Amino acid sequence: MTSPELNQLVAQIGDEILARVAPHLLPARTAADPASIARYIDHTILRPGATRSEVLQVAAEARQYGFASVCINPYWVPLVAHELAGTPVKVCSVVGFPLGASLAASKREETAAVIRLGAREVDMVINAGALITGDFDTVKMDIQGIVEVAHAGGAIVKVILETCLLDDNQKMIACSLAGLAGADFVKTSTGFSRGGATAHDVALMRSVVGGQMGVKASGGIRTLEDFRLMVAAGANRIGASRSVQIVEAARA
Amino acid sequence: MTSPELNQLVAQIGDEILARVAPHLLPARTAADPASIARYIDHTILRPGATRSEVLQVAAEARQYGFASVCINPYWVPLVAHELAGTPVKVCSVVGFPLGASLAASKREETAAVIRLGAREVDMVINAGALITGDFDTVKMDIQGIVEVAHAGGAIVKVILETCLLDDNQKMIACSLAGLAGADFVKTSTGFSRGGATAHDVALMRSVVGGQMGVKASGGIRTLEDFRLMVAAGANRIGASRSVQIVEAARA
Repeated sequence: MTSPELNQLVAQIGDEILARVAPHLLPARTAADPASIARYIDHTILRPGATRSEVLQVAAEARQYGFASVCINPYWVPLVAHELAGTPVKVCSVVGFPLGASLAASKREETAAVIRLGAREVDMVINAGALITGDFDTVKMDIQGIVEVAHAGGAIVKVILETCLLDDNQKMIACSLAGLAGADFVKTSTGFSRGGATAHDVALMRSVVGGQMGVKASGGIRTLEDFRLMVAAGANRIGASRSVQIVEAARA
Repeated sequence: MTSPELNQLVAQIGDEILARVAPHLLPARTAADPASIARYIDHTILRPGATRSEVLQVAAEARQYGFASVCINPYWVPLVAHELAGTPVKVCSVVGFPLGASLAASKREETAAVIRLGAREVDMVINAGALITGDFDTVKMDIQGIVEVAHAGGAIVKVILETCLLDDNQKMIACSLAGLAGADFVKTSTGFSRGGATAHDVALMRSVVGGQMGVKASGGIRTLEDFRLMVAAGANRIGASRSVQIVEAARA
């Protein structure tokens, strides 16, 4: 099978799965239950200019609404771990973020550091340049190094594909490599590139990882409608900054 | 003096210096000499999806044109160091890039790693969140940790302010902190945020650091006119991806 044929097939698979799955999942999974919506969401503040008080506000909102985690840059991990101590809300941080083009050794050390400081979820960015070059072993070993450190420290790993940089073939390969490397989730986007999550990508990723791994949709998810579309497509975790508005919309 | 008054004064200083300096520097410093233009430029490829062959092409162009350095993500440092061995073109890499919100310890380790692999220039991003919060000591210590490691390894440090996130006061404070921390250059932008270099910012930064430090303008510098404007405003290093086009325009 040629590469264009394969691409077309992959595109059809994604769309077919989406079309088949969406009508069933949409009402069932996202009934108007703000608390269960909140448990899907990594409440996220990753802007580099975010201040201490803005980060504290996000942590307070996460406690109040019961979000799955607070997702912050490494520098803020100690502060947020302190704020969330004794609550069910996890500390999530990012590694090799958002370009993914740092050294594998640096990513491992950064993973160890944020876990030492209290992170229990690590969202790492794949080496997209190596992937597109075709150096799949580099991509896999990069992920695997992080997974080993994270699992030893009791943390899970989400592998950010940055789907907007990849074609569907590359997205599927990245999902496979994440699985082979022992990661816990695949995730669509950093929110810092030219595109975010799409239902097509989420369905495609879910079709590769099946029920064995999680799928996190992130990047541009701003409304309850966006949230529902992503969950319908197969996401079981959502990254969002406008998390409070999403939950409040479900209450209305 | 109140903060608004200070802001206004700072803005005037920048514009006045620019107005005074520009007409004198513009023709003298950027006479139609492609070779001397090339020596100003860090030939840059930092896109996360850049492939091995694209990085190799940038390295080859740098050898051919005599650019000051090739600026790449850490993952590509070994490859580029190999390609540039025995040439006067330096290997420049980035640390804590582009958000600057990683841990100071991670930034230090990343600095040591890229230098070990051949980098002789390190462009690090300040912790903008800490700066805007007012934690100036955090910002200074973050830079200082990198400077110590870099200077011990024979490398220079450029401190990226990400000016588009800061007001003029904060830009001036960041320049002062970079100087106090012993850095070699201040630099305007990562090219991954919402704005790049402006002549106003370059003149403002030059007015703070005087002749003691370098000023690198980067982000959105695409033409020979952009280049000339930045040098006229006080930059003595330019980060660009379209470096070949800039030099060729000077030849025409």
